[in-house]
Formats: sequence, structure tokens, C-alpha cells
Amino acid sequence: MAQEDVFKKIVSHCKEYGFVFPSSDIYDGLAAVYDYGQNGVELKNNIKEYWWKSMVLLHDNIVGIDSAIFMHPTIWKASGHVDAFNDPLIDNRDSKKRYRADVLIEDQIGKYEEKIEKEIAKARKRFGDSFDEAKFRETNPRVLEHQKKRDDLHARYTEAMQGPNLEALKQIIIDEEIVDPISGTKNWTDVRQFNLMFSTEMGSTSDAASKIYLRPETAQGIFVNYLNVQKTGRMKIPFGIAQIGKAFRNEIVARQFIFRMREFEQMEMQFFVKPGTEKEWFSKWKEFRMKWHQALGFGADNYRFHDHEKLAFYANAATDIEFKMPFGFKEVEGIHSRTDYDLKQHEKFSGRSIKYFDPQTNESYTPYDIETSIGVDRMFLSIMCHSYEEEKLENGETRVVLKLPAALAPVKLAVLPLVKKDGLPEKAREIINNLKFHFNCQYDEKDTIGKRYRRQDAIGTPYCVTVDYDTLKDNCVTLRFRDTMEQERVSIDDLNSIIEDKVSIASLLKKLQ
Amino acid sequence: MAQEDVFKKIVSHCKEYGFVFPSSDIYDGLAAVYDYGQNGVELKNNIKEYWWKSMVLLHDNIVGIDSAIFMHPTIWKASGHVDAFNDPLIDNRDSKKRYRADVLIEDQIGKYEEKIEKEIAKARKRFGDSFDEAKFRETNPRVLEHQKKRDDLHARYTEAMQGPNLEALKQIIIDEEIVDPISGTKNWTDVRQFNLMFSTEMGSTSDAASKIYLRPETAQGIFVNYLNVQKTGRMKIPFGIAQIGKAFRNEIVARQFIFRMREFEQMEMQFFVKPGTEKEWFSKWKEFRMKWHQALGFGADNYRFHDHEKLAFYANAATDIEFKMPFGFKEVEGIHSRTDYDLKQHEKFSGRSIKYFDPQTNESYTPYDIETSIGVDRMFLSIMCHSYEEEKLENGETRVVLKLPAALAPVKLAVLPLVKKDGLPEKAREIINNLKFHFNCQYDEKDTIGKRYRRQDAIGTPYCVTVDYDTLKDNCVTLRFRDTMEQERVSIDDLNSIIEDKVSIASLLKKLQ
Repeated sequence: MAQEDVFKKIVSHCKEYGFVFPSSDIYDGLAAVYDYGQNGVELKNNIKEYWWKSMVLLHDNIVGIDSAIFMHPTIWKASGHVDAFNDPLIDNRDSKKRYRADVLIEDQIGKYEEKIEKEIAKARKRFGDSFDEAKFRETNPRVLEHQKKRDDLHARYTEAMQGPNLEALKQIIIDEEIVDPISGTKNWTDVRQFNLMFSTEMGSTSDAASKIYLRPETAQGIFVNYLNVQKTGRMKIPFGIAQIGKAFRNEIVARQFIFRMREFEQMEMQFFVKPGTEKEWFSKWKEFRMKWHQALGFGADNYRFHDHEKLAFYANAATDIEFKMPFGFKEVEGIHSRTDYDLKQHEKFSGRSIKYFDPQTNESYTPYDIETSIGVDRMFLSIMCHSYEEEKLENGETRVVLKLPAALAPVKLAVLPLVKKDGLPEKAREIINNLKFHFNCQYDEKDTIGKRYRRQDAIGTPYCVTVDYDTLKDNCVTLRFRDTMEQERVSIDDLNSIIEDKVSIASLLKKLQ
Repeated sequence: MAQEDVFKKIVSHCKEYGFVFPSSDIYDGLAAVYDYGQNGVELKNNIKEYWWKSMVLLHDNIVGIDSAIFMHPTIWKASGHVDAFNDPLIDNRDSKKRYRADVLIEDQIGKYEEKIEKEIAKARKRFGDSFDEAKFRETNPRVLEHQKKRDDLHARYTEAMQGPNLEALKQIIIDEEIVDPISGTKNWTDVRQFNLMFSTEMGSTSDAASKIYLRPETAQGIFVNYLNVQKTGRMKIPFGIAQIGKAFRNEIVARQFIFRMREFEQMEMQFFVKPGTEKEWFSKWKEFRMKWHQALGFGADNYRFHDHEKLAFYANAATDIEFKMPFGFKEVEGIHSRTDYDLKQHEKFSGRSIKYFDPQTNESYTPYDIETSIGVDRMFLSIMCHSYEEEKLENGETRVVLKLPAALAPVKLAVLPLVKKDGLPEKAREIINNLKFHFNCQYDEKDTIGKRYRRQDAIGTPYCVTVDYDTLKDNCVTLRFRDTMEQERVSIDDLNSIIEDKVSIASLLKKLQ
């Protein structure tokens, strides 16, 4: 199945099984905004709990905070967002549609790429097994021509994006004869900068009302609380502050389902260190964060680091952790060595001293910062993508199963009475009543056992138990495992000890030791 | 100590011990917005977990969702918020300040109240033990005069607020000769309606951009997802949908610390029932919700129901659960029987049918709804207020202790090496390493044991253990209980079983059975 089709299936599975709904669905949706349904919210909460505990419980030098979405507007001057958090936009005068100039050019680069791939595919068909792709790429004149155009364009584009140089971006669009996909014309306006922050007015009087922003990232909430946390928490360098919360960006091109949304959630941790030790800590955090991802058991092949060659002017190291999505390797997390840039900016704009006094060395300094920043929604999507499987069964049927890590699954155990009578439902409820304080159980009595198993497979429930007539005599149930579909007869009294440990967040945390 | 002073102390305790900081503190704050610090975020998360699990784990007919803050703007037309979610405002032309007309009048009512209290205080002083307050209230001419003025004003005010009648509100302000506290003048403008929703623009082109609102409540996110959840979750009436999330209101008069903020968090559950059964369910939810509050152990005296006499036109029953704050009994939760109003409004505005088909009776109907709605921040404040104590100790010293319910405390166990040497710190860390997967532990080696106990008391840590020289020999530690300050020698191997159950959210949930 083509990866595109797989992705479409995952998106529709998300809706059909209560993971993700288009926001305001009965009003035909709101662009690039989504709601989490009854199963999605549990999976999302479990992801957040796994991250939070891995930071706050496992590190006694990391504490959390929860800062507000509304912040003083000067903070976004200090952070650079008011002046530089922009997308270069261009309008087509005929279609009246607005586009991101950089995306138009990136799509154009992609077109050269496609042409190259097409030549290679044709040649492979012609030459069969004897086809030497590497040699073909190096020698075929048409491929070489496309490659040169692609590389030239890429170089020009990269240069124009420094700054960015808006005239240069416009000139590329003209020179490449890029047309509006809707109107088909080249009737473009100039390229202009458009700030991505949402703004609103706080207060009621025209003179007292002030323009404030919805935070475009949670990180600044940590920086401006650095002093209060360090002092009241008596934190000693090195230490970290973790935060989970919503952020908002008025994206022009929001795409790929929940991968890029206008309202999204971040899990960010800023780790403050002594200047000079930041490279060492950067490496440690790279390692720890990769371990965190891989503890989910999806296989190391699905992850890679993408170290940044071009760094932001204030950064001295940066990498992304990329995950293999159906639409390619994509960033799910960023790890950045941001130096003392943010704290110094806030010192400058607030007029407060943000220094750390080291009691052991009697030194005073502005700490350096290592940031780990991960999108909850992207993480959610990567987990759904990797867990979704269509399995051919021995009887020729297909089952759709979400092989979610048990600790993240929305429902841990389904309890299914074989029939709706003779005390079996009551027995099933009795089992749930004893286990429900420990983990999420679901009762289901409708349809055949086979159909009920399929429904649980589709939402990723790791365990099902069936209550049958024998249960009333021997106090045992049939325990069925999602991944293997194997069944085992176990005592009801053993259920908690069999299941609880495997479905707990602690089971994941222990892998991080 | 006067209740006002107690409240001030709690506010400063919240800041000093990392519970609540003014938002954007280094930028001198942002009005009526607060951030939760390292201890506050843990307490807040524990409150949310207690609520969430009490809804979703304990009721197999309640599921959760997490809908976005951004919603389709028509939703707020349907809900009535665009047209009717207003405050009546009035400006003073001299001070240029804006006030809520209703608050000005309520303050005026309060002034008559104060005059009455003053007369009573004077009389009590004069008559001493023989003073009969009830009789004095009934007979003293000055008291009677103030009472009459107060009652007349209250009646006029209540009538003017129906609608509300803006001219009538203005006339009251003129007749009562209410002056601006800043300018001291009566130079008022007319009263005008001011909508409390924050708005922003989504999208980038002037033609495509649309005005959207930050949700002023989470409830509508549940109503518009009713159909998707009911269908994909195969829910049968009666069933509920629970949600926790941020909401935003541009309050003019935001006061009492985190009691009324512009950005706040709600925990709302909408329970959908068959029409005709709503009164019965309303009673059941009143009972369950009161039980939930009282399970925290603060004593039944601190709670009361306040049944609404005047109901919203669509409601057929409503009550508040009030908690005794230092500034009086205040609403922390509302329980409302909202009939089928919300779902019908969304049917009307979206054009979609939102009916429930009952397979047992073959009937189709729009469900009725019981809402339970609680403010996380108010709940947080009520818990801080009730937990804060200043205790006189035998030695004459005072200790400040937060008697938080153990399951909600930010830190569950502090591990304190007696001295910073001879392997005691290592032993302490070993204890933490074995327990940290289960609950939040804190290590502290600074200052005397006594001072360390005080610090843990101040953040509400229910258990402390001290690691001493004997520990290295007998593998035992001194376990100290926060509330009684009693100490006990226990084996390190028993710590988890002694503590885990008492500090778990499950320990609270079991009280709700």
C-alpha cells in the first residue's frame, strides 16, 4: 500500500475510533484545528504523563511549572517574536489567494526532484536488474541538468532566506515562472512579512486595553519564571524547568493532519548549566531524549538525529530527533543549546538582574540553557502511525490493530461477558469494580466475542478477558493478548498483578534508568 | 487573626514556596493572570487527576475529550455568548476609569451593610453581655433605616439586572449618588454592554481571515462533539463527557488572587439523560459532587449548597457548591440542569440533527443535560486556604504547615541525610532511587534537620525520613509525620508499602464508592 494511502487510513481511523475529530465538526470544521476524542484524550494524557514523570520524577534537579498562555507583551519583544517570527507571504492577484513564498519555492525544488526520479524509474524499467542507479545519476545528461537546476535553485533559495531577502524571494518566483495552482497565472504581488502570533486585546477601555499575544511557544514562560523558581525552589545549577502547555501559531500552510496545527501543545524543558559545560549537557540530553523515544519499542530504525548545520545566531548546537512518518522522516523534537541568549534578553528588557550566584566558586554568571522541545500532537501522530497495522489472519480475514505501547493505550483491559445473562454481566462488572482504581477498564457485552476483540484491537487495548460459565465455578477468565492473539486461562485474583505493572507509566520509566 | 490577614498570608505563602507566582513577574506582572510554580503545578495536576479519574475511571458511562480552545465562531452565536455574555460598564469622565455598574451598586449595598454592622458593634460595646442582637436589629431606628435602604436598593438592583435594563442601572447610580473612588465625582457616562470574550483573527488574508474567540467555557466543546463521541464511542443514554481545559474571560474586575482570573481552567462534565429523568440525575450528581469535595477531609462544615432561586430561562434546576474561603462562602462548583437547550441550539445553528435513538424503546429524542462545572484554580485556592495553618509549638515557636490531603501534596516524601558525609547522602539517594517511580520524592541536605522539616511542612509534604548513622547498620530510618510531628523508626524495605497507598489518588477514589 502506498504510504499516502496508509496515512489517509490512519486519519480516518483516528476519527472512526474516537481518537481525533476535526474541531467544530458539526459546523464543518475550523481549519487546522482538531479535537481529541474519548480515546485520543487518554493516549495524549498518557504521553504527557510519560514525559512529565521522566523529567520531574526521574531527575531530582528538574521541577515543573505551568505558566499562563497570556504573558506581558514585552516578553515577545525580548524573545524576538514581535520582530522576527514571520512568514514571507505572496498573493496572486487573480486567485486572490495568499501563499508562503518559501513553500512555493520548496515545491518548485521538489518538482526538479520528481523529474530526476522519473528519469531513474524509466531507466530502471528499461535496464532491469543490470541498472546501476549511482552511475546513471552521475552520467545521464537529463538527470545532470535537473540536478544542476535543483542545486542552483536550492542555493539561491537558501541565500534569499537569510534575512530573509524578500525581493530575492520574489525574483526567484518570477525567474522560475512559478504559477498559482488555482489561477494558473504568474500575476504575483510583492513578498511581505506576516507575523505568526495571534493577538488579542486585554482590558476594556480603549486607553487601558493592551494588545497581548497568545504565546507561540511555552519556552518563554520558563525563562521569565527562572528567577522565582530558582529562588523559591532553592535550585542549584545545573537544574531544569519543565512545562507542558498549549501554544498558538497562525500558520498559513497548515497541513498533514495534526502534524502542523494552529493550536498545539508543547512539552518543553529548559536545562540551565554553567557556561562552558553546555556542549557536554547537550550530548547528555541528546542521548536521554533518544532513549525516551526508543523506550516505546518502535525500533531504533525509525529515529534519526538531524544535526543543524546552520544555527540561529545565538545557538551553539542544535539537533532534531526525526521520526519516520508515512510522509517521510519528520521532526518530532528539537534539542538546542541556546547559550545565555534568552535570559540576557529578559535581563535587558525587564531591567532585572538574572544572575546565578554559585556558592561553591563564589562566581556570579548568567546560566547557559539547553532546551528540549517536543510537540505533543506530533508525538501522538508518530505513535498512531507506527502502531497502526492491518494484519492478514490465517482465516483470510484482515484485522486492524493498534499496537500501542501498553502503558500509553487508552483502555488497558476490556472485560467481556460471553453472554448477556445468567450472571455473567454481573461477574464482569465485579471484576471491573476491583480493578478500576488502578487502570482504565472497559465493559462490552454487545455482539460476538470476535467482533468485540476486533473493536478492542482497533483502539489498541492490550488485554481482554472473557467471562464464561466456567468463570462462575472456577473464578478464572480467558485472558487474550492483543499482539499475539494468544489466550490463556488465569485466575481473576491474578489479573491485577499480571496487568498493572505492564500498563503503568512506571514500566516505561524503568527503561530509562 | 482577621480573615483578611490570613488571606494575605496565604497569597504570600503561595509565592514564597513556589505555588503561585504573578504572571510575567519580572515584567511587573500581567493583571489577573498567574503562573503556577514548581509546587503549584504538582498540586494542580493532582487535583485534575483526582477529578478526571473520579469521572472517567469510576463511571463506565463517562468518557473524556480534549477539544480545542479555538472553535468555529458560529458556536458562540448558538450558545448565546456573542449576544448575551456581557458586563454592564460605566465610565467616569473625570478619572477616565471604567467600572462594572453592577459592582458599583453591589458595593453600595455593602456600605449599608457596613453601617448596620457598625451600629451593632457600638451597641454591643455599650451593653456588653446583656446585648440582644436580634432584638436590636428589629427595634433600633437607625438600623431599621439602613436595612430598609439596603433592601429597597437590592430589590431595585435585582430588577434592573433582569435584561439587564441599562438605563435603570444608571439611574440607581445617580439616585444613590455613587462617586468614582478615584476622581470622587459623579460625572458618569451611560451604562453600556461589554462582551467578555477575547477575540482574535485567524488566517492571513483580509478576505479569508475570520474573527474567532477564545472559548469562555469548555462546555460548548463537549456539546459540539456530542455526536462524534456518542457514535464512535457507542455510548448509550445516560452517559457523560468530561473535559479539563483552559477558558478565557476579559473580566473588568478581576479580584481575590486566583479566584477570578482572565485565564483560568475548568473541569466540566455534561451528563446526557432521557428527558423526564433529569431531576433524579440532578440530585444524584449533587450528592456525588459533594462527596467528591468532602473526601478531601476538610470537614462538612466548610461546604454548603446554594440552590438558585432565579434560573436561566433554559434551566430547570441549578445549585452551587460553596466553600468557606477566608473572604466568605464562595462558589467553587456549579451543577445545572440545562434541559436540551444547548444541543437544540447547535441543531438549529449547524443544521445537523442531534438526536439520540433509543434502541430499547425505539424512541428518538434530544437528550437533556446535567452539567457539573468546577474551576480548577478556585479549587486550588480553597485547598490552600483550608490547608494553611500556623501552629504554636510546645517550645513557643510557630510552625507554618500546609495540611494538604496527602494524595494532593506536591512532594510525598522528603529524604534527609542527617549529615552531608560518611555515606549518608548516598544512602538517602539510594532510597529515592527505589521509590521515585512510584511517587514524588525530594532530597534535601542543607541546614539542620529541624529547618528541613519546617521547609517540608511549608509545602505540605506528608512524610519525611531521616537517614542517620544507625541506618547504615540497621537499614532503618526515622519516619516523621507532618500533621502530628510524631516519629517512628521503620525499615527502609517497608517505606513503599507504608506510603504509596496513602499518597495515591486511588486512596481518594476509594472513598467515593
